[in-house]
Amino acid sequence: MSASKRQMKLGAFLWATGHHIAAWRHPQAHVTAGIDIDHYIQLARIAEAAKFDMIFCEDAAGLREADVGIASQTSRSIGLEPISLLSALAVQTERIGLVSTASTSYNEPYGLARTFLSIDHLSGGRAGWNLVTSASPIEAANFGSTGLRPHADRYERAREFAEVVSGLWQGGSFQGHDGQSFSVRDPLDLQRSPQGAPVMVQAGASDLGRDLAARTADVVFTAAQTFEEAKAFYDDLKGRMTGYGREPDDIKIMPGVSPVVAETEAEAREKYEELQELIPDDVGVALLSSYLSISDLGRYPIDGPMPELPETEGMKSRQALVVEQSRRDGLSIRQLARHFAGARGHWRIVGTAAQVADELQARFEGGAADGFNVMPSWFPGELDAFCALVVPELRRRGLFRTDYQGHTLRDHLGLKRPA
Amino acid sequence: MSASKRQMKLGAFLWATGHHIAAWRHPQAHVTAGIDIDHYIQLARIAEAAKFDMIFCEDAAGLREADVGIASQTSRSIGLEPISLLSALAVQTERIGLVSTASTSYNEPYGLARTFLSIDHLSGGRAGWNLVTSASPIEAANFGSTGLRPHADRYERAREFAEVVSGLWQGGSFQGHDGQSFSVRDPLDLQRSPQGAPVMVQAGASDLGRDLAARTADVVFTAAQTFEEAKAFYDDLKGRMTGYGREPDDIKIMPGVSPVVAETEAEAREKYEELQELIPDDVGVALLSSYLSISDLGRYPIDGPMPELPETEGMKSRQALVVEQSRRDGLSIRQLARHFAGARGHWRIVGTAAQVADELQARFEGGAADGFNVMPSWFPGELDAFCALVVPELRRRGLFRTDYQGHTLRDHLGLKRPA
Repeated sequence: MSASKRQMKLGAFLWATGHHIAAWRHPQAHVTAGIDIDHYIQLARIAEAAKFDMIFCEDAAGLREADVGIASQTSRSIGLEPISLLSALAVQTERIGLVSTASTSYNEPYGLARTFLSIDHLSGGRAGWNLVTSASPIEAANFGSTGLRPHADRYERAREFAEVVSGLWQGGSFQGHDGQSFSVRDPLDLQRSPQGAPVMVQAGASDLGRDLAARTADVVFTAAQTFEEAKAFYDDLKGRMTGYGREPDDIKIMPGVSPVVAETEAEAREKYEELQELIPDDVGVALLSSYLSISDLGRYPIDGPMPELPETEGMKSRQALVVEQSRRDGLSIRQLARHFAGARGHWRIVGTAAQVADELQARFEGGAADGFNVMPSWFPGELDAFCALVVPELRRRGLFRTDYQGHTLRDHLGLKRPA
Repeated sequence: MSASKRQMKLGAFLWATGHHIAAWRHPQAHVTAGIDIDHYIQLARIAEAAKFDMIFCEDAAGLREADVGIASQTSRSIGLEPISLLSALAVQTERIGLVSTASTSYNEPYGLARTFLSIDHLSGGRAGWNLVTSASPIEAANFGSTGLRPHADRYERAREFAEVVSGLWQGGSFQGHDGQSFSVRDPLDLQRSPQGAPVMVQAGASDLGRDLAARTADVVFTAAQTFEEAKAFYDDLKGRMTGYGREPDDIKIMPGVSPVVAETEAEAREKYEELQELIPDDVGVALLSSYLSISDLGRYPIDGPMPELPETEGMKSRQALVVEQSRRDGLSIRQLARHFAGARGHWRIVGTAAQVADELQARFEGGAADGFNVMPSWFPGELDAFCALVVPELRRRGLFRTDYQGHTLRDHLGLKRPA
């Protein structure tokens, strides 16, 4: 193992009872995990002990499903707001990076820049902001009566938002901003970050989303089922960066992966099927509908094929992915819903540590990923299993650190400090 | 000492190096206190060990002074953003209440209600929100180019904002809101607070501010120099509550007080003068100008009297207070600025523990206060002194608890749980 060998980046996705939609029905589930800070502290410390680069909190400012009955049957029907959660975790951990999602549609850049820079100071330079434009009409209904902004408008606002935030994070040299959506006069009343600036994370996979990431992101989360999809996304995004005067290594691309790992493949498969069988059909279909931003999937025959989807203002890239998968595998709505629901559209690997490591290594060394955002199906069981089985296997292969080398999130990720 | 004797409520005001404008120049000052989370954790634990009801963080989303040179010479030129700060303190303390300021002008009610309810869950029912409408044009310039909203508009927005937040804190029974400034459809994705709802704090002292407090506040912070001012405010506010179907004891009125205490009066006075002499004249005048929301105080002769003040859209009640004091005491601008700057317009007591306790007791038992928001002039020295000298004296008099009786902030304050 060479000291200079390229190292895999790992994020741990924290999500109440677990990433699997039926995690809350798992026999060992901690049912009120979503509002239990001690639960989150435990998870963050497990990930830190395994030397993960970061923990990652997704977010939406609203119910996750339009139907309250459906929402209450998912693994994240309630949960702590992630800015307050992350701030609490900052003083209960020492080294691991802390990334939270926040929306450019329902915040102002001055307030958001200030809050993330504050968390960065709280944590000694370990904060990151995951920029989202918020595609859910459910959220939009909690922030005014005008509905969801069109996709292109959301991204134009996000582009300007990110520009203002980056400027504010430069400290006293901020010269003010007077633009289309925002006008900000003064610098923040905080000194610059211990890591130069908080890390900027993005996940949008549409054409506009990729351009915004190529221009401003340090880390990109993405969803890709196959190697080919992952590779195509990776090459496309890295290729766009030169247009913005950036080098490919300035962004770390970290696809989501939902591993189910055990000592034997049979045992892993059994664990996986146990969770899959806990997914009610109506929840699976509702989740798929919500993910695709279409409201009427329930009126198509559940054992028939996926219908043609109209263009919506939701996440265009996700739709294409799901429709393609449905056709490729000849899945009915029921099958697709269940298959999809388990990992929420992300890549799933079920097997032994060696099998999981093989798959991760293939994408990492094949130029399809710089690391992975690990989404354990239920907590703490599957996070424990990943840390106990897969992490040591990755280390044996020289693919993952045995200890932190630096103190900031940028140190862990090998990112430049902003000028 | 009777067990049923009415107990004084105490808040500890946390503010970087200290509440005194020149605290940062104190020989023992911790100069980077504003961004040092360990400093804040230390202060919160000192206040908790002394069984304070709560800590309190003020806020403004912007520089505190229009002139960056002046801003950099005050005791809070930089500092952590209070939501992230409070969330971190929630998991580093056990019993003390945690109150932070947030603006109704630069937030949305859905996001704000969610964040404070989340901190409430993080802390086991110890959170409070201090509602402000944000009177500073410096903040306004960071949130758009349209300038500060007129006073009445700010308060109308704040009234609606508070109504939506209270509704959202009622949990699943929230029926949506469609009003002038806000439209919110769904309940929060969080269960109700361990204390029923976070505590609602307010500080506006104008006519509109008092009406809003009488309608919605659980705690009111206020500034009053004399017993008569404090008593008049107290009676007026409690009198307004019946118009909203509330009982006088449903609000705890806690004026700010900036005590300087020592074993002897001479020693206390020496400590006080030491800090006063550290105030540069230009800073004193700038602070007074900013507090009064007037920009040109510096062009009047510094040794002449205060000019007549025009009506502005800033804090009307503060202006009246300062102008009245200036005339009452025949102070020049320089004298008023220095006198005012030290305690930032709040009540100041310099003396022994018995003298400080006498003054507090007189207002508490004279029907002018339900407790006090203690603003130590520098940290940790004056907070330590208050806890070591004044708190035991208040206990000897049966005026302050020897231990917490409950676990939530509402328990400490003796407030009803919302239905």
